[in-house]
Amino acid sequence: MSSQASYDKIKVGDSIPPLAKGPLTKEWIRKYADASGDHNPIHIDDKYATAFGLPGVIAHGMLNMGFVAQHVASWAGLEGSLKRIKVRFGAIVKPGDTVTCKGKVKDKKIEGGRKTVFCELWAENQKGEQVITGEADVVFA
Amino acid sequence: MSSQASYDKIKVGDSIPPLAKGPLTKEWIRKYADASGDHNPIHIDDKYATAFGLPGVIAHGMLNMGFVAQHVASWAGLEGSLKRIKVRFGAIVKPGDTVTCKGKVKDKKIEGGRKTVFCELWAENQKGEQVITGEADVVFA
Repeated sequence: MSSQASYDKIKVGDSIPPLAKGPLTKEWIRKYADASGDHNPIHIDDKYATAFGLPGVIAHGMLNMGFVAQHVASWAGLEGSLKRIKVRFGAIVKPGDTVTCKGKVKDKKIEGGRKTVFCELWAENQKGEQVITGEADVVFA
Repeated sequence: MSSQASYDKIKVGDSIPPLAKGPLTKEWIRKYADASGDHNPIHIDDKYATAFGLPGVIAHGMLNMGFVAQHVASWAGLEGSLKRIKVRFGAIVKPGDTVTCKGKVKDKKIEGGRKTVFCELWAENQKGEQVITGEADVVFA
């Protein structure tokens, strides 16, 4: 539990410990397609994806966004709860890529009677390209 | 392809055809845990979830958010691409619940040289309770 956050100890500017996911595989992307019910062929069929102008199948944006949410939520731990998240999608993520989620604390304050921490989040691939940028609000008990 | 959007035909106020997902099952939630790598026991272990004050295991917020993203992305179709999404989490989602994603077009304009459509999104359970509210920007080719 030592990596989990506690409202009183969090300081503005704190880094959120990184979370690396990958390398992604076609099988992993297919599992996500099954679990999410999103079987868009750009995630499953290399030939289709290539005809579409992509280098081959790509990961669902939401899979990457899920990593980002999991990153901040696991840091928030049992005391914190993810209330809002917003993201902007950047570079595509392909099989073989590793996505590393990073973040830092932008602000903390009592908002509407709730201890709220505002985080800046981003995820990058192994080349350092940003695949997602975003923000999240975490409310602490 | 008739349910897919085309920038020129989209009108402000248009409804996005609903997408219903469910009923959710424990197996579905476990599949999502495996695919996402998020094995927080509140999603897997009824006993743990109950001790945590929940009625039993609950779906990952990101699974529901994935439904919302899939809803708007499949409406956007081949011509549109989801660029940004933000959500706020509301009611929890449990096995047996069905999540229906809905939305409407708030605005459309050329932004930074790109045909952009601004959508309001929400997802509700079978009781009409909102499980997610949010917004998304879709860019059209």
